[in-house]
Amino acid sequence: MVKSCFKTKFGIPRQPGLVQEASGEIVLLPPYNQPNTVRGLEEFSHIWVLFIFHQAIREHWKATVRPPRLGGDKRIGVFSSRSPFRPNPVGLSVLKLNEVICRNGKVSLMVEGLDMVEGTPVIDIKPYVPYADAIPDARGSFAQNAPDGNALPVSFTEEAARQCQQLEAGGLHDFRALAEKLISANPRPAYQKIPGRIYGIFLFGYEVVWQASENGALVTEITKAQGQ
Amino acid sequence: MVKSCFKTKFGIPRQPGLVQEASGEIVLLPPYNQPNTVRGLEEFSHIWVLFIFHQAIREHWKATVRPPRLGGDKRIGVFSSRSPFRPNPVGLSVLKLNEVICRNGKVSLMVEGLDMVEGTPVIDIKPYVPYADAIPDARGSFAQNAPDGNALPVSFTEEAARQCQQLEAGGLHDFRALAEKLISANPRPAYQKIPGRIYGIFLFGYEVVWQASENGALVTEITKAQGQ
Repeated sequence: MVKSCFKTKFGIPRQPGLVQEASGEIVLLPPYNQPNTVRGLEEFSHIWVLFIFHQAIREHWKATVRPPRLGGDKRIGVFSSRSPFRPNPVGLSVLKLNEVICRNGKVSLMVEGLDMVEGTPVIDIKPYVPYADAIPDARGSFAQNAPDGNALPVSFTEEAARQCQQLEAGGLHDFRALAEKLISANPRPAYQKIPGRIYGIFLFGYEVVWQASENGALVTEITKAQGQ
Repeated sequence: MVKSCFKTKFGIPRQPGLVQEASGEIVLLPPYNQPNTVRGLEEFSHIWVLFIFHQAIREHWKATVRPPRLGGDKRIGVFSSRSPFRPNPVGLSVLKLNEVICRNGKVSLMVEGLDMVEGTPVIDIKPYVPYADAIPDARGSFAQNAPDGNALPVSFTEEAARQCQQLEAGGLHDFRALAEKLISANPRPAYQKIPGRIYGIFLFGYEVVWQASENGALVTEITKAQGQ
């Protein structure tokens, strides 16, 4: 089960590894919470996580999807995409493994570059095996290169900047950098680019409130999230 | 569903991509056999295949496994290994995609570097996205480098060599090279290194019969496989 900085789907990076500050924990639930199941895993720098896109489960599947990378208006096959909406809603992410913690019957993996929402059910963990898994010269069609991480210039109001400082002082390191990177990747759905519209990204127990304009995004405040 | 050159488990490469000659076909069964589901997939050079290790399903799972790479006597965590024997027996392989065939209600993907047995059930196909999936400098512990593909020197009897020639003339291109590479990777279980023992690898409709000695392997004959 994933403990994530992301409490809701909106704003989550579209692939793992894009936002290093996005950190979390993969908690092994019983009966897998035995140090033996992960013996030797700390010798690998990266892991594969196979998980269920539990917030994308639908009764019906569609043969095609419209990836945000293609502007949201071009359709490609569901098996030609990494969309969460798929016949078997299984996700696949490679994550940097920072620490393996085995303590008092708790086994958990501290990871970074996360792209999963809080509570994501994990079905398997495998080590990343570079000689088999790394194919740097693979041809990747429309997803050859990482998406533009600076698609939307982000600024903060004085109030929002002060709130970020407070949260960071309280232990949420990199809170502002995380919020800024998530917003500057432009998480708005491709079909929805209404200037002036207000959005919220839920990080830890807080909502980062921002407004999109023609020229960029302005973070207006950070509020304590209700019921998060 | 996978149509594979490998008709039984024994001899299958331990990771995908190790034996380029190992080719096969991923056949999309109804209702997924629509050209739309794979629209645009031919623009990717590699695909991820998520599949069930259907011949490795057991009623009980074990917290540790003994990888052949470690000589078969050292135990590591099941989540620190790519063993097919795992709590959720889901496999993950990246394969080179040679062709996408959509014809007469049939949709299938021609792949190479296969490491799956005939009839393997596929649960998902995703494009390989190099910017996210390729981490060539990942630290890979005991699996940092590819295993020695020439662990066992292989020779053929005159009879076996002649039979390979016949099969190749009949359309099974690279039959000898495939057999030789599979055997030279030393597929014998780590606990079973009895000199003189006879083994069989089932490829297409044939059994490649070979014998291990102290110095290497001798392919003695290629026979038509019973009931394959």
